[in-house]
Amino acid sequence: MEDPQALAALQDSVLHSPATILESLPKSVKRRVNALKQLQVRCAHTEAKFYEEVHELERKYASLYQPLFDKRRDVITGTVEPTDAECEWRSDHEEEEELSEELKKKACMEETKEAAPSEEDPKGIPEFWLTIFKNVDMLGDLLQEHDEPILKHLQDIKVKFSEPGQPMSFTLEFHFEPNSYFTNTVLTKVYKMKSEPDREDPFSFEGPEIIDCEGCEINWNKGKDVTVKTIKKKQKHKGRGTVRTITKTVPNDSFFNFFNPIKVAETEMDEDSEFTLAADFEIGHFFRERIVPRAVLYFTGEALEDDDSDHGEEGDEDDEGDYDPKVSFFSFT
Amino acid sequence: MEDPQALAALQDSVLHSPATILESLPKSVKRRVNALKQLQVRCAHTEAKFYEEVHELERKYASLYQPLFDKRRDVITGTVEPTDAECEWRSDHEEEEELSEELKKKACMEETKEAAPSEEDPKGIPEFWLTIFKNVDMLGDLLQEHDEPILKHLQDIKVKFSEPGQPMSFTLEFHFEPNSYFTNTVLTKVYKMKSEPDREDPFSFEGPEIIDCEGCEINWNKGKDVTVKTIKKKQKHKGRGTVRTITKTVPNDSFFNFFNPIKVAETEMDEDSEFTLAADFEIGHFFRERIVPRAVLYFTGEALEDDDSDHGEEGDEDDEGDYDPKVSFFSFT
Repeated sequence: MEDPQALAALQDSVLHSPATILESLPKSVKRRVNALKQLQVRCAHTEAKFYEEVHELERKYASLYQPLFDKRRDVITGTVEPTDAECEWRSDHEEEEELSEELKKKACMEETKEAAPSEEDPKGIPEFWLTIFKNVDMLGDLLQEHDEPILKHLQDIKVKFSEPGQPMSFTLEFHFEPNSYFTNTVLTKVYKMKSEPDREDPFSFEGPEIIDCEGCEINWNKGKDVTVKTIKKKQKHKGRGTVRTITKTVPNDSFFNFFNPIKVAETEMDEDSEFTLAADFEIGHFFRERIVPRAVLYFTGEALEDDDSDHGEEGDEDDEGDYDPKVSFFSFT
Repeated sequence: MEDPQALAALQDSVLHSPATILESLPKSVKRRVNALKQLQVRCAHTEAKFYEEVHELERKYASLYQPLFDKRRDVITGTVEPTDAECEWRSDHEEEEELSEELKKKACMEETKEAAPSEEDPKGIPEFWLTIFKNVDMLGDLLQEHDEPILKHLQDIKVKFSEPGQPMSFTLEFHFEPNSYFTNTVLTKVYKMKSEPDREDPFSFEGPEIIDCEGCEINWNKGKDVTVKTIKKKQKHKGRGTVRTITKTVPNDSFFNFFNPIKVAETEMDEDSEFTLAADFEIGHFFRERIVPRAVLYFTGEALEDDDSDHGEEGDEDDEGDYDPKVSFFSFT
């Protein structure tokens, strides 16, 4: 506090902080503003209860979505072949009609070229989840080449909510078909949540937050663990002076590190760890809110367009239909 | 379609659009993806029902918040004087203790200066809502100097939800004390909402949207209508060639134009109107979601800080506590 400049800056920030603006009010008014703040804290606690009830609703709806998601899995894995009626889609005819004749011809030629290897008839929808991982930047960043053959065996991702009365949480379940990489059939990641205003800072409350997460042990088959790599190192024997080569196991970049996250509780975290953890929470949230509920749209890329336009630049749109003066109520980030 | 460059560009966008990526898949796989899309439409309709139930919950909670909001209004208007216990606030002592002694002394000096005109004892919290209008950029942009004396008479803003079974909507009620400007005691703005997937574009569904709004007539006292101004214009009589001065009434910028919005149904809208309407919907949404539920925090400025940090730059924060790896679930924009 000896540096006069630092003192001035601190003083300035104190004088213009909301606390000080309050200070400048007559005492009687300041008192009343404090009364409103007490009421506001009570509002925050009421809001917390609201979000708990929303969470109950989400649990209820999870069971309504589940049959649809199960059907999705069966189609993806090829367990079930959908009927012709189930495979009708308007774009099959309508959208094509919208193309000009000339364009259609050209596109058809290209299609024939690109569709050449389609003679074979694959089972289900091959590489469905891997394609999503590749399409979504947030996941693509984690994805390594050695992860790809493993993720071809991913058959389903499920979100399971905690039971009523239990602390609020959700679990991501990654279901794999039997494969040569590990013996697990399901890999899990639990995200623990909190839905109550902070005692110290009740006004920052904005609904449930992820506060911690927990991975699972992957039982890798021998030599298949992509989350580690072995490096060779020369070592000199102190006494004899002989040199020998030892192999050392070190961590390796991989999506599968997702199942071995940093522990929140463990001592103090540096900025890097906090950043990594925040990114992990974002990904868990994104799986739950976007990818699992609308996987096919991330497979085809349609959801990606939406996500982009959210961050939107309006650009030079002379097309009337593009600008839509609607306000969405629940925009989950 | 004669321009080969334009054709190439269009063709390119067609070839790389999700529709064309689908085209490149084997026919049997494409069929199955369409089946998933049908399932996805069913998910969207289930989601719509979820949001209707959330809306029911909001209605339920509105009645739990109401006593707190009524108390707030009574304190603001001075109808009720809160007790000492109701006016306790930690920052009164704790936060001050956190300041260094020296700083405290300086701040106190400043405080004495600034608090000089506090000798008088005003009723309630004067200019409570007007201060909020000034603090919030989105509203400040609408606010004109001639609106300010009128908004000093604003005593409360309420949100009322549509009754169960009615089309989804909410009404903003602006309650005024008797004043010399207009005879209304309440000005209203109704926002109509829709919570169902669009038939043509079901995948864009993200929850309830505002689709239309309706204002109210303001019964201005003579000469008090700030939404119009009179201009003088010279007019020449065609036959006689004499010149006379006429007064003409033209629209004037004012916050009170908020109660006379553009009609959605009326003919085709140009880009300007669509932009104006979208901005209006944003403001209605902001009143409902942020200002009404946490008015005191917009009065003190505390909520403004939060809104800012949402858009945050992390900056060069060496302060550990600043970076909080939590993910909020419901972030209403």
